[in-house]
Amino acid sequence: MPKIAVYPGSFDPITIGHMDIIKRVSHIFDQVIVLVANSSDKKYLFTAEERADIVRKAMNQMDVKNSEVCIHDGLTTEFMKSRKAQVIVRGLRAVADFEYEGTLANMNYRIAPEIETFMIFSRPEYYFISSRGVKELARNGGDVTGLIPDFLGPALIKKLAD
Amino acid sequence: MPKIAVYPGSFDPITIGHMDIIKRVSHIFDQVIVLVANSSDKKYLFTAEERADIVRKAMNQMDVKNSEVCIHDGLTTEFMKSRKAQVIVRGLRAVADFEYEGTLANMNYRIAPEIETFMIFSRPEYYFISSRGVKELARNGGDVTGLIPDFLGPALIKKLAD
Amino acid sequence: MPKIAVYPGSFDPITIGHMDIIKRVSHIFDQVIVLVANSSDKKYLFTAEERADIVRKAMNQMDVKNSEVCIHDGLTTEFMKSRKAQVIVRGLRAVADFEYEGTLANMNYRIAPEIETFMIFSRPEYYFISSRGVKELARNGGDVTGLIPDFLGPALIKKLAD
Amino acid sequence: MPKIAVYPGSFDPITIGHMDIIKRVSHIFDQVIVLVANSSDKKYLFTAEERADIVRKAMNQMDVKNSEVCIHDGLTTEFMKSRKAQVIVRGLRAVADFEYEGTLANMNYRIAPEIETFMIFSRPEYYFISSRGVKELARNGGDVTGLIPDFLGPALIKKLAD
Amino acid sequence: MPKIAVYPGSFDPITIGHMDIIKRVSHIFDQVIVLVANSSDKKYLFTAEERADIVRKAMNQMDVKNSEVCIHDGLTTEFMKSRKAQVIVRGLRAVADFEYEGTLANMNYRIAPEIETFMIFSRPEYYFISSRGVKELARNGGDVTGLIPDFLGPALIKKLAD
Amino acid sequence: MPKIAVYPGSFDPITIGHMDIIKRVSHIFDQVIVLVANSSDKKYLFTAEERADIVRKAMNQMDVKNSEVCIHDGLTTEFMKSRKAQVIVRGLRAVADFEYEGTLANMNYRIAPEIETFMIFSRPEYYFISSRGVKELARNGGDVTGLIPDFLGPALIKKLAD
Repeated sequence: MPKIAVYPGSFDPITIGHMDIIKRVSHIFDQVIVLVANSSDKKYLFTAEERADIVRKAMNQMDVKNSEVCIHDGLTTEFMKSRKAQVIVRGLRAVADFEYEGTLANMNYRIAPEIETFMIFSRPEYYFISSRGVKELARNGGDVTGLIPDFLGPALIKKLAD
Repeated sequence: MPKIAVYPGSFDPITIGHMDIIKRVSHIFDQVIVLVANSSDKKYLFTAEERADIVRKAMNQMDVKNSEVCIHDGLTTEFMKSRKAQVIVRGLRAVADFEYEGTLANMNYRIAPEIETFMIFSRPEYYFISSRGVKELARNGGDVTGLIPDFLGPALIKKLAD
Repeated sequence: MPKIAVYPGSFDPITIGHMDIIKRVSHIFDQVIVLVANSSDKKYLFTAEERADIVRKAMNQMDVKNSEVCIHDGLTTEFMKSRKAQVIVRGLRAVADFEYEGTLANMNYRIAPEIETFMIFSRPEYYFISSRGVKELARNGGDVTGLIPDFLGPALIKKLAD
Repeated sequence: MPKIAVYPGSFDPITIGHMDIIKRVSHIFDQVIVLVANSSDKKYLFTAEERADIVRKAMNQMDVKNSEVCIHDGLTTEFMKSRKAQVIVRGLRAVADFEYEGTLANMNYRIAPEIETFMIFSRPEYYFISSRGVKELARNGGDVTGLIPDFLGPALIKKLAD
Repeated sequence: MPKIAVYPGSFDPITIGHMDIIKRVSHIFDQVIVLVANSSDKKYLFTAEERADIVRKAMNQMDVKNSEVCIHDGLTTEFMKSRKAQVIVRGLRAVADFEYEGTLANMNYRIAPEIETFMIFSRPEYYFISSRGVKELARNGGDVTGLIPDFLGPALIKKLAD
Repeated sequence: MPKIAVYPGSFDPITIGHMDIIKRVSHIFDQVIVLVANSSDKKYLFTAEERADIVRKAMNQMDVKNSEVCIHDGLTTEFMKSRKAQVIVRGLRAVADFEYEGTLANMNYRIAPEIETFMIFSRPEYYFISSRGVKELARNGGDVTGLIPDFLGPALIKKLAD
């Protein structure tokens, strides 16, 4: 049976930190599904379709073959069962992440004990990069080169100006 | 290429928390190697051979087929290269673990960037179980049933009395 | 003088984690008052009266005799003085709780130095259960059996559908 | 070249914890600029001008000579370049602060590597004092004497009543 | 049935932080037993008898009537059963304490589910005071006045010189 | 009056993480004194004189002019008074550091309130580098190039082989 990992998140927008994790995980599993969340009670800068397109473009650039991008609203575990995926992958940056992830992992275990959650540490050089930080920086006129995929820069600035 | 995970530790002795992680990981990877550390500057209650034997017995009891036990002194990454293993698995219980693991993962990344470290949360019911705690409890005459494999109880008490 | 403990919170809605703490605390103090917060600058799913009723029902089910439920808006310490209560009880799950509780305890100490705050750890099996998590799970169609009192399940689903 | 430190924050309103840090920092640097943030996507109780005036009054009371108050919206590093300031000063109270500050410091380093961020621990007696806590206390009719500059008490109560 | 709390620790030696906690707890419970640990695998500066005597003297000075000092080696829960004590009290200062205490509390719960552990925050002004810090300070010729009971100063200096 | 910062530590041996902090701090203060600790109750790999020599060599290589290396046993604050230094500088890497540093800073404040402690975050790329980690890596035959000053590699390997 192929081993399938799901990497869920908002990706609003994807950063080079996310991209690095996708690449690393793609070497370990037969397939990686990037799962773009679309929750009705959250506000996003980019629509779900835009966010998924950006992720797809970024994965093409990185030349990651065994991956796919999906949009999903609802329980991640439900999506995984429909795709026979066994592993949730989550990036860890800080202690605050750690606790939140622990709660999430245990919650998911209760719902779907056959699904495992694996945490992976961000590389130190990506520790300080978050989607929220990137947007704040761009909003204040800061330079975001090197924090997001190159093609995304102009689109982000345009979006924030809307 | 088969996906091989290595689960390194002291296992002095193995607890049901360790056993649970081995079982869970064995469902995800083609092979799991439990790597019993034997560091010259650490003191162990059980010898490396005893600790490895106990792990083997425990894995037999759990009916985990795709696993192996090895003893190793030195860099975990060196061992992994010799076995073409791609993933280090580590259990996470507390924030203190989290930081130590982050340092270790980054150190290993520097030495062997092709090797990934995956962290997995202990189930809540195993959070408070550590080899050290088990030994302390047994030393004070407390009951360790249910914290270590059943066959180990008498051996642990005998060892502590030596 | 009877020893009276106050257990303040939102209880929106009560979980089996809260229920366990109430039961444990009721063995130690002469009386336990569950204090349902009703803050004008917070949004609740259930009204204060509904939340208090649910707590009362849950305590009846657990057969906790020496307890009472009150609704309060304002400083917890003011309520406590009016009832000659000496101890605030708070549950601890994570490091984030810990820091928030420390701030709160010290703030309360400044206002009312004769009142003590006691923290009590959730049992490991309840670590991952929060009112917020339960609501999120139910909102996404997940099964919340065993996380909240049994009688509450249908009411929660109905409320979320409104 | 004179050494100039910038102490950025919301100061909504200033507390005696902030005041203590300003005083301590003023002994080390040639000049301290208190930078009152005015972000369009945040809600403040006091306007930027009011907050800056309160800080100025508080500094007069403390008799801190080598200081200045500015209002700024945008990247702190841009302001610093315009004033040739070298050091950002931040107060630390809790682990949560610590992680946030680490992210911020690294983000700023990326934008302006010549600017350093120095963290300074609050004195234990000010650990539990935050602008948010003070406002909550006052809103509930609690006594805030000794937590904010004396002259501010009536203004705070009036503002909250509006 | 009287409510009896046990406050276990090394008290090597007692600090004013410990003393403050004993005083505060003595107002809440019918009796407080300070349990001086005497573990064969730990090294202490003062003998168990000396440490217990110092605690007794300190409690006399504070005029705490409903307290007692005992020396114990072994499981705290065994001692408590022999005395029909229901509550273990522990002081909390930092996140590191928090995690250690959580493990301990859960371990004790497993052995003796009828015994509860209550954590109480040190007052901010005692956060930085530990027995270890006091000894280090005295060893380096620093002034420990106000950190330990006054009568203890000369004895501590003499002991360290031995 | 010149502003003098002291950077205390074991430096057993200095890493490129330490070197980066020295360089950064040297731009802010008139003088930086690297204070090599020599505590009688600690075991070091290198003697105090060797450690100080290595620091001096490393600072020459970095071309840091306004610095000095001293060896000291005892209270850091005593040394600082003798040199009229105002600021202790400490590097922060993890939450564990954070708490330890908070205790230390408050202890020093009690002894010498006129001395300030400033914390500075390690650059992300140096987060995972510690003297202890470097020694462990070298002891196991790992490559330490780029973690310590280049000239130190052979000396470290020789020292560990003794």
